Amino acid sequence: MSGREGGKRVVAGFHAVTARLRHAPESIEALYVDASRRDGRMQQLLDRADAAGLRVTAADAPRLQRLAGGSNHQGVVALCRELAVARSLDDLLGRTNAGSLLLLLDGVTDPRNLGACMRTAEAAGAQGVIVPRDRSASLTPVAAAAAAGAAESLPLIAVTNLARAMDEIRDAGIRIVGAVGEAEHSIYDIDLSGPVAWALGAEGPGLRRLTREKCDFLARIPLVGQIESLNVSVAAGVCLFETLRQRAASAAASKA
Amino acid sequence: MSGREGGKRVVAGFHAVTARLRHAPESIEALYVDASRRDGRMQQLLDRADAAGLRVTAADAPRLQRLAGGSNHQGVVALCRELAVARSLDDLLGRTNAGSLLLLLDGVTDPRNLGACMRTAEAAGAQGVIVPRDRSASLTPVAAAAAAGAAESLPLIAVTNLARAMDEIRDAGIRIVGAVGEAEHSIYDIDLSGPVAWALGAEGPGLRRLTREKCDFLARIPLVGQIESLNVSVAAGVCLFETLRQRAASAAASKA
Repeated sequence: MSGREGGKRVVAGFHAVTARLRHAPESIEALYVDASRRDGRMQQLLDRADAAGLRVTAADAPRLQRLAGGSNHQGVVALCRELAVARSLDDLLGRTNAGSLLLLLDGVTDPRNLGACMRTAEAAGAQGVIVPRDRSASLTPVAAAAAAGAAESLPLIAVTNLARAMDEIRDAGIRIVGAVGEAEHSIYDIDLSGPVAWALGAEGPGLRRLTREKCDFLARIPLVGQIESLNVSVAAGVCLFETLRQRAASAAASKA
Repeated sequence: MSGREGGKRVVAGFHAVTARLRHAPESIEALYVDASRRDGRMQQLLDRADAAGLRVTAADAPRLQRLAGGSNHQGVVALCRELAVARSLDDLLGRTNAGSLLLLLDGVTDPRNLGACMRTAEAAGAQGVIVPRDRSASLTPVAAAAAAGAAESLPLIAVTNLARAMDEIRDAGIRIVGAVGEAEHSIYDIDLSGPVAWALGAEGPGLRRLTREKCDFLARIPLVGQIESLNVSVAAGVCLFETLRQRAASAAASKA
C-alpha cells in the first residue's frame, strides 16, 4: 500500500516496506513502527532497517493510522522519496538492453485485469506496461489494489497511437511477439532471447488486426481443454515467465 | 460455448466441438455444420468427424443459431450426451494415468480467484480441482463467471480433510508438488513428467504447514521483481503450463 503525503510517498505494510528496504533503502527518509509489536516479522524488518543504517521511530497506533492514510499498515509506515521510473515511452525505450521485457495490452478495459497484469509483469521483471490511451482501463483504486504494489515501481505508459508506439518499440531493437490463439507456432517454439515485448489483447476480441500486423511474431499458448482463452493476466504470466525460462536456459547453456 | 437443450448438451464453435471430437467423440449424438463454409478449419473438423465415424448434418444459419441458443457457433454445433465428470476424489483418482494433472487449492477463499483457477486448470487440461471444504470459496455465481465455462466440465471436489486427500492422491501414484516462494528449487528444475498434482496456497499465508509437509516436492516460481507473489490463478497458469511444456518436450525427445 502506498500514497502521497506532503510530496513524499507513503509506503505502508510489511510487504511494501520490506520491498523498499531491499531495493531502494536510500529512498527511505523516515521509518515508523508500532513499538508494541515484537514478533518475528517485525524483528526481521528492524534487522533489515538496521543493516541499511536507517533510524527507526516508534509510533503509536493513531499516529501510524494517520501516516498511512487509511491503508492497512500492519504497524509499519515509511516515508520515501519517489523512485525514478520511466514516465514516457521514449524514456523507457532509452533504457533498452538485452534483458528488456515489455508488456503491451491492447484493449484491457477491466481495471482488475489491468492491475493483475501489472502485478504479473512486475513479478516477471518487466520494465513497463504500454496501453493505448483510449482503449484501456486506467489506474483506478481497483486496478491499484489488484496490482498489489506493482503500480508504484512499474511504469504504466498510455500512448495515443499504439501502432506508432509499436514502430518505435521495434526501432529500439525490441521484437514484438503477439499472443494469438490461432497462431501457428506455440510460445515454446519461438526464440524469446534478446529484448522482447509481448502484445496481449482483451479477452474476447483479442489483438486488433492492426496490432497483430505490427507484431514481428505471433504465438499461441497451447490450450488443451474446452476453454478458448485464458484470463489476460494468466496469459501474461505464462508468456512472460516462459521468456524468463528461455533466457535462463540459454544463459546456462552458454556458460556450460 | 455450451449449454443444455432438451436434456442434451449443446456444444458450439470450432474450439469446443474440436475438443469434444478429440476427447469424447462417442458422446456426440448429432453434428450440424454450416454447409456454405468451406475453409481449412471446417475441412479439418469434417475430417476429424469422419475419422470418428460421425455423420454430419448440413444446416443453415437460422437453424444453427436456434440450436446454439445465442452462443457464437461459427457454423458448427454438436448435440452431445453429458460427459460424466468425476464427482468424488475416489472417482477422480480411479482415472489416474500418465497424463494426470490435478490442482489443489489450499485456502483460496475469494470466489473470483477460485473461478479464475478453474478456468486456467481446464485450459491446461487438468482433470480436477481439489479444495478443503471449510477453507475455500464455493462455486458462487461470481466464481462460475470467472471460470468462464470451466465449472461445467471440470470437477471441483471439496474434501473434508485436505491432508488425508493428499495421502490418497499420493497412494494413487500422483506426485504432489507444492508451489512455495521460499522453495530451494525452481519449477523449471524439477521433473514434472508423469502424474502430477500442484498444490497452491492462498495469497498471503500460502500453503499451510501441514499441506507443505504432505507435498512430495516444493518448488518456486522464480520472481524477479519487488512483488513477493503472483495472483493464485496466474501462479496456477505458470505451474500447469510449465508441466505441459515439459511433458511435450520429453515426448518429442523420446520420439527423436
